Amino acid sequence: MRVRNSLLDFKNKIIYQDTDYFSMSLDSLLLANFVTVNLRDKVIVDFCTGNAPIPMLLTYKTHAKLYGIEYQKEIYELGIDSIKENEMSEQITLYNDDVKNSLQYFKRESVDVVTVNPPYFKLGEKSFVNDNEIKKIARHEVHISLEDIIYNASLLLKKGGTFAMVHRPDRLIEIIMLMKKYHIEPKRMRFVIPKMGENANILLIEGKMNGSSGLKILPELVVYDSDNNYTKEIKEMFGSDTHVAK
Amino acid sequence: MRVRNSLLDFKNKIIYQDTDYFSMSLDSLLLANFVTVNLRDKVIVDFCTGNAPIPMLLTYKTHAKLYGIEYQKEIYELGIDSIKENEMSEQITLYNDDVKNSLQYFKRESVDVVTVNPPYFKLGEKSFVNDNEIKKIARHEVHISLEDIIYNASLLLKKGGTFAMVHRPDRLIEIIMLMKKYHIEPKRMRFVIPKMGENANILLIEGKMNGSSGLKILPELVVYDSDNNYTKEIKEMFGSDTHVAK
Repeated sequence: MRVRNSLLDFKNKIIYQDTDYFSMSLDSLLLANFVTVNLRDKVIVDFCTGNAPIPMLLTYKTHAKLYGIEYQKEIYELGIDSIKENEMSEQITLYNDDVKNSLQYFKRESVDVVTVNPPYFKLGEKSFVNDNEIKKIARHEVHISLEDIIYNASLLLKKGGTFAMVHRPDRLIEIIMLMKKYHIEPKRMRFVIPKMGENANILLIEGKMNGSSGLKILPELVVYDSDNNYTKEIKEMFGSDTHVAK
Repeated sequence: MRVRNSLLDFKNKIIYQDTDYFSMSLDSLLLANFVTVNLRDKVIVDFCTGNAPIPMLLTYKTHAKLYGIEYQKEIYELGIDSIKENEMSEQITLYNDDVKNSLQYFKRESVDVVTVNPPYFKLGEKSFVNDNEIKKIARHEVHISLEDIIYNASLLLKKGGTFAMVHRPDRLIEIIMLMKKYHIEPKRMRFVIPKMGENANILLIEGKMNGSSGLKILPELVVYDSDNNYTKEIKEMFGSDTHVAK
């Protein structure tokens, strides 16, 4: 079912979602907030962009050209419609293709920032819901693996360019090994916890292409208070009236 | 100057320190609390044991035999005196030797747990104080590198054995790469922050020899409250009257 959701209430933007497919998650919002974007950045590419929440949110942080790549046509088309409706077509371009083909759209070492909210689950690993085919591809590494994503990011990124990803903390070791393998040095990490005192369930990680070593661990981000309302930090991040599909 | 310090006031234990050398730090106490010790564990080895705070603290968690290895004679002797005074000689044995010689004391794959609070600074890297030679060796990788430590731990540990270390978060990537290199899979991590909202300055990390992948990020541990007193969690961990040299 296609629904018209508010992306950020306080900015009066809307996003098309299809509840049969995949709803925009808090994860994309957290990543868009987390990623370091510099004034001089000209080209930003979002892999596995889905219905394009990250490029749309990044329009508030940068004047760079924003690109999104989404493999699934049904989800890509929701992104196209949302961008048109929000009059962001000048700044955002979406491609309906495989991330592994990204060199068809961008030169090697030409991109300033790559962001990605990738499929979280390994093939064969159980997700927490019974997924239809489209959801399965968005959640599981069916068409693309973590290594494919990091390798392709490393091809596109300029020396010193930024790679930023949201993922599951239990895959941190694999993520770090692959970033190092493709010469993206982890520089900033932030763990997101559902409630105070609980273990982290979301990882935000950023690295620099050919960067020097040295990592900063940012303060934990708590999502919900004891009454199951968003914490002050989350509300401030996204606007106090924000409704995000869970 | 040799001083007689309380190790844990509420347990009436004492520890000899020499303020010219190196005071017991909060780090050792945090590591002793963090490390997973099982009832079946029989042999626990603490590398770079200093004046042996970790073995002494572990007497409260285990009946395993505890061993400490300390390279510097002056610091080793403080440990020996403390262990005698606390009547822990039955359970704790200290060796005044290089960790790189540890196979002289333990068989390969015979140890259940290795703990270590190693020198934090790379050779050439600036520490925050002007160190004398003994402090320099305790703080800097003069005689032993991070790789030496992790390699030697991997030689001693049984399959499934536990490696637990306290270190600086900015060296996390290097730590993970070396643990993976020597087949110690990181399983638990906890970041310690000085005060709420600040970046982590202490890393606690634990891995299993030949373990399967999958990592847990434990909740952040906050050391001081806004009045610069220990937080409730720290007080509870170490006893409410605890005085720890800073």
